[in-house]
Amino acid sequence: MKPIHLIAALMLGIPMMLIPTDAFADEGMWLFTNPPKKWLKEHYDFEPSEAWLKNLQRSAVRFNSGGSGAFVSPEGLVITNHHVGADALQKLSSPDRDLVAKGFHAKTRDEEIKCVDLELNVLMSTEDVTARVNAAVKKDMSQADAEKARRAVTNTIEKESLDKTKLRSDVITLYHGGEYHLYRYKKYTDVRLVFAPEQDIAFFGGDPDNFEYPRYDLDICFFHVYEDGKPAKVEHYLPWSKSGASENELVFVVGNPGHTDRLDTVRHLEFLRDRNYPSSLRTIFRREVLLTAYSQRSLENARRAKDELFGIQNTRKARLAALAGLQDPAIMDRKSKDEKTLRDSLLKDSTLKGDAKAWDDVSTAIDEWNRIYTDWALLENGTAFNSELFSIARQLVRIADEDAKDNADRLREYRESNRESLEQQLFSEAPVYDDLEVAKLADSLSMFMEQAGADNQWVRKTLRGHSPQARADELVRGTKLKDVAYRKEIAKAGRSAIEKSDDPMIQLALLVDPPSREVRKTYEEKVDEPLKQAYAKIANARFAIEGTSTYPDATFSLRLAFGQVKGYMQDGKKIPPWTTIGGAFKHSDLHGAKPPFVLPDSWLQPPKPLDQNTPFNFVCTADIIGGNSGSPVINKAGQYVGIIFDGNIQSLVLNFTYTDAQARAVSVHSSAILEALRNVYGAVELADEIERGRAK
Amino acid sequence: MKPIHLIAALMLGIPMMLIPTDAFADEGMWLFTNPPKKWLKEHYDFEPSEAWLKNLQRSAVRFNSGGSGAFVSPEGLVITNHHVGADALQKLSSPDRDLVAKGFHAKTRDEEIKCVDLELNVLMSTEDVTARVNAAVKKDMSQADAEKARRAVTNTIEKESLDKTKLRSDVITLYHGGEYHLYRYKKYTDVRLVFAPEQDIAFFGGDPDNFEYPRYDLDICFFHVYEDGKPAKVEHYLPWSKSGASENELVFVVGNPGHTDRLDTVRHLEFLRDRNYPSSLRTIFRREVLLTAYSQRSLENARRAKDELFGIQNTRKARLAALAGLQDPAIMDRKSKDEKTLRDSLLKDSTLKGDAKAWDDVSTAIDEWNRIYTDWALLENGTAFNSELFSIARQLVRIADEDAKDNADRLREYRESNRESLEQQLFSEAPVYDDLEVAKLADSLSMFMEQAGADNQWVRKTLRGHSPQARADELVRGTKLKDVAYRKEIAKAGRSAIEKSDDPMIQLALLVDPPSREVRKTYEEKVDEPLKQAYAKIANARFAIEGTSTYPDATFSLRLAFGQVKGYMQDGKKIPPWTTIGGAFKHSDLHGAKPPFVLPDSWLQPPKPLDQNTPFNFVCTADIIGGNSGSPVINKAGQYVGIIFDGNIQSLVLNFTYTDAQARAVSVHSSAILEALRNVYGAVELADEIERGRAK
Repeated sequence: MKPIHLIAALMLGIPMMLIPTDAFADEGMWLFTNPPKKWLKEHYDFEPSEAWLKNLQRSAVRFNSGGSGAFVSPEGLVITNHHVGADALQKLSSPDRDLVAKGFHAKTRDEEIKCVDLELNVLMSTEDVTARVNAAVKKDMSQADAEKARRAVTNTIEKESLDKTKLRSDVITLYHGGEYHLYRYKKYTDVRLVFAPEQDIAFFGGDPDNFEYPRYDLDICFFHVYEDGKPAKVEHYLPWSKSGASENELVFVVGNPGHTDRLDTVRHLEFLRDRNYPSSLRTIFRREVLLTAYSQRSLENARRAKDELFGIQNTRKARLAALAGLQDPAIMDRKSKDEKTLRDSLLKDSTLKGDAKAWDDVSTAIDEWNRIYTDWALLENGTAFNSELFSIARQLVRIADEDAKDNADRLREYRESNRESLEQQLFSEAPVYDDLEVAKLADSLSMFMEQAGADNQWVRKTLRGHSPQARADELVRGTKLKDVAYRKEIAKAGRSAIEKSDDPMIQLALLVDPPSREVRKTYEEKVDEPLKQAYAKIANARFAIEGTSTYPDATFSLRLAFGQVKGYMQDGKKIPPWTTIGGAFKHSDLHGAKPPFVLPDSWLQPPKPLDQNTPFNFVCTADIIGGNSGSPVINKAGQYVGIIFDGNIQSLVLNFTYTDAQARAVSVHSSAILEALRNVYGAVELADEIERGRAK
Repeated sequence: MKPIHLIAALMLGIPMMLIPTDAFADEGMWLFTNPPKKWLKEHYDFEPSEAWLKNLQRSAVRFNSGGSGAFVSPEGLVITNHHVGADALQKLSSPDRDLVAKGFHAKTRDEEIKCVDLELNVLMSTEDVTARVNAAVKKDMSQADAEKARRAVTNTIEKESLDKTKLRSDVITLYHGGEYHLYRYKKYTDVRLVFAPEQDIAFFGGDPDNFEYPRYDLDICFFHVYEDGKPAKVEHYLPWSKSGASENELVFVVGNPGHTDRLDTVRHLEFLRDRNYPSSLRTIFRREVLLTAYSQRSLENARRAKDELFGIQNTRKARLAALAGLQDPAIMDRKSKDEKTLRDSLLKDSTLKGDAKAWDDVSTAIDEWNRIYTDWALLENGTAFNSELFSIARQLVRIADEDAKDNADRLREYRESNRESLEQQLFSEAPVYDDLEVAKLADSLSMFMEQAGADNQWVRKTLRGHSPQARADELVRGTKLKDVAYRKEIAKAGRSAIEKSDDPMIQLALLVDPPSREVRKTYEEKVDEPLKQAYAKIANARFAIEGTSTYPDATFSLRLAFGQVKGYMQDGKKIPPWTTIGGAFKHSDLHGAKPPFVLPDSWLQPPKPLDQNTPFNFVCTADIIGGNSGSPVINKAGQYVGIIFDGNIQSLVLNFTYTDAQARAVSVHSSAILEALRNVYGAVELADEIERGRAK
């Protein structure tokens, strides 16, 4: 039971940010090196042991395609969401084998299918390298030199670590530049598909129910990891809880939240509100309409575009809700007040006073970002060239240029320590569809013309006197880059061979590389580096004034969150924390059993009777955001009680500020998973493997 | 058979514009006062008589909701497209009676349902009033005075005509200001629904097949007109052709093409390409995503938003294809060349020379339009306030202001001669749905904040410290304008009562009226009036140099087009001019019989066997554009052979330039209509009434 004064704070919906008091509630995406031990002890009387934390950390699996997961058996069984695995499922699918829609079940190890380009990461160790990074950046350096020096030291630290440990080594920027940590990951690149349900139940309710609650989704997917072609054994995994968590129970979420903006200054948030979000939403709306129209033309089109369309719709809904938060004066006024409080405290402190300028430095960098925004988005982010084949061409062109430089001087993604992961994607055998490529590229070239202007030199040089449609057609039909062998050949060939290539997509990538690099350089030197320097000052001021018992914004790196299983009030009605399997059938009936509210045949006529009362999905107050999809939900005993697959619509404001008034993380209950595996899918071996893990 | 040199010209795809030579082909949306008699005689050996023309003109019906139609029986039976009638069907529907989806069939006159706000117009006479309009605008007047004078004389001409003839009287601007014609319409406001098929067959193939060919749609709908509460008798109607038109046969299309931009200067077209189209497409994409997401939430939501969503998707597809035309250098280069040719001819002519400045005047006006574009779109066009209830509030506020002025000085839509039509819409009992209103208004207020800026005074005053969502909720839930009686009360109340009203939507309309009127005033004085003056000069120059045997851009007024029933080549394949009823079944199978390729039960199990070989849809080369939907297709004998319901995707460039290389108008065949009425729907009385008309 929480002390009564907390309730009032929570009713405001917008608790104070980053102040380690009661107002924190269940806030925080905590580093494993700095977990909220004091809070847990004081409010939940729970003290996690080092062994408990270590098992969580090493059982957690990052999906490099953009999600989280966990080992749930010593035999290397990984569970994640269906919508996280969907990228791999889509790439294994063909017109005759739609694994996304129809699901998959390997009854034996032999039937498992190897994913084409999936990379999983397990965080083995971390090291604070802030001092070394900052030492490389001298006080009197220009922004350009500072950016170069910071990149060089980062690339070098990673390379040294890789050489020494053979582990994937990434320097992670925390607190927007306040700290730099070296993360070492064990990497799995031989990942095989074990089980996926039909999309109709994995994503039951579709886009309308996405980010909503109550829900009834079996959003799961299983893989096995292999090493040297053989099933891997893993030391750390999460034992399964058959009964799951009960109401008000304390639970933990371990995963990789992708990105939050809680530490942004008000000016930075205003830029997100006025420029960044509206601009990206315009592109998203356009792509959603394009892909929806494309998908409706035939069932095969729908299959080809499915995973991409899901991603776009998911982003659209999340962005719109987050933008609504930014457009809500209640939130922005609170942010302004908090910022003023911190700045005022700073100004009163003679040693910190000088750092108050940091807010102005952020504003200057943001102004610069705003100035270059259109070119930056179109050229360097590539919204003008929405095509897989163009991305491949660009990477090949850049590899040739970057390989000729010292590792320290390379653009981040071409650093030596990242080469294996880069090639895993670049040489992927994932199918590429000409018609879809043409549709996407034509539309984005049209947008390029519209946004940069018909007379823009790069627009003219790109289109070469053709319409966007005709030029897209020529580029896609003419390129040989669909052939992975050809990609490998080009990757080896070096700059002069690339310049001689008559491949039209390579030629286009070569053509637009100089202006793209130029705007990237401006961004890195005049936006990113100054932001890092300014936010480092703000972070230090925060630490000095508010204390260091805090957590950084999300960066798609491993975090620990916690909360209680708890319902909430909405429109005057109490939303209970659970749904049941029986509720799925009622929900389908309520929507006339029409798509996306159709239950698959396997559920309508299960081989064994389904217990309608089995808890299906549940909500908790843990602090999550996109990237947490697939995160394990754990009880105090370290057992697996569920899998995060969504947040409700009220949770999307967590991008900027934590609240547990209504915001909830949404999970599939561990009981429902076993019930479905055994009674719907007859996946006895899989259920047995999970339950063997439970015996641990 | 056409002379051989024509073929070559046509292969270019972009024939010359407005030059009365062979290159014209079947081009033209001709005025009934200036039909292409010479061309028809020379190329088709056909001479339309005055009686033939008069019967066509008076049989043609304009749907004020935005389409065309025709009388096909002396008993006042009107046929139009299902998608033209859909606005009326939607307004007559309720959760328990979905006339749009399920169709309707009144077996007797008693079963017919009166439409809530449908107005039909029949063009009775036209009069050239160019001299009188231009005489009112003195040479030395400022643009503001010229605009005022032109508006005053126009309002006055219409009022005089209405008083004299009791006919709806509209002054139509032709050649962008080159001529002004007074059109007098007989008005029908008691219109009753007779028959509509299910949307599944009316719009078979849905958005994916929209603007495509081959097609298989029964896109029809029947109404009866009434006068004084009794069935009307009509003197003019089109007798039905049971066998329809044959390949290569000359056919005519009579209808109301909405808008074309063929006479626009290149600068004007560039503005459409760079600003107007992209800007409106952004709003369209956003609304399509919003309404699609809203519709997916429940079957009832889908029903509520159906007609509006169709309209948006239809506009999106048309605009994108037209924009592709503007972004095609082949078209723009040709436009530039044509413009240069005309300007050069002008400069060589000492009497016309001075008018060459008109192109610069157009550019100046376009620059001004570009400058005010955002405010103009948001405030005066109301994209910031996407709500039926807001539109009603704005009209009520403006009626109060405009009624206090002389008729001559009023804004166009509040002129006395338009009052009946305005009230027909304003006091409509069409249902308004709170949840849909909130969703639309919240989204558009968010867009307002984004486009005008969070600190814009009108944004701040509109939102009053709330988020867009909260403010939309407050406005929609708080207004009493859903109640038609309340609207009537407010309409009578006058300005001071309106100012005292505590209705939040009225208050909002009052609040934003001054800046909206201001930007409108700027638009009318600095954009519209200068464009009219400049285009009048350009039109006169054209007449002088190219001759007067030409036609003006479309203005949603009655036009005569003509062409041949003819297939075309696409991707190396011959597309035949016809499809058959049997083809619909095959097309459904090809798409797995999934929506929108599901045939209704009535077609799958018709009471009488369907002749699979009956021609279903067909294409012809007639020059059409949006607004022509529902237009009758006529043979030389003046018989009804089909109904226009679409153009193929290649036809959408007709907005800017005529081509018959691939562009085709798409119609339902008259045989298919009778076949379906008799064998699928058992609509014997209706088929009999049509066939009685045939006996004429």
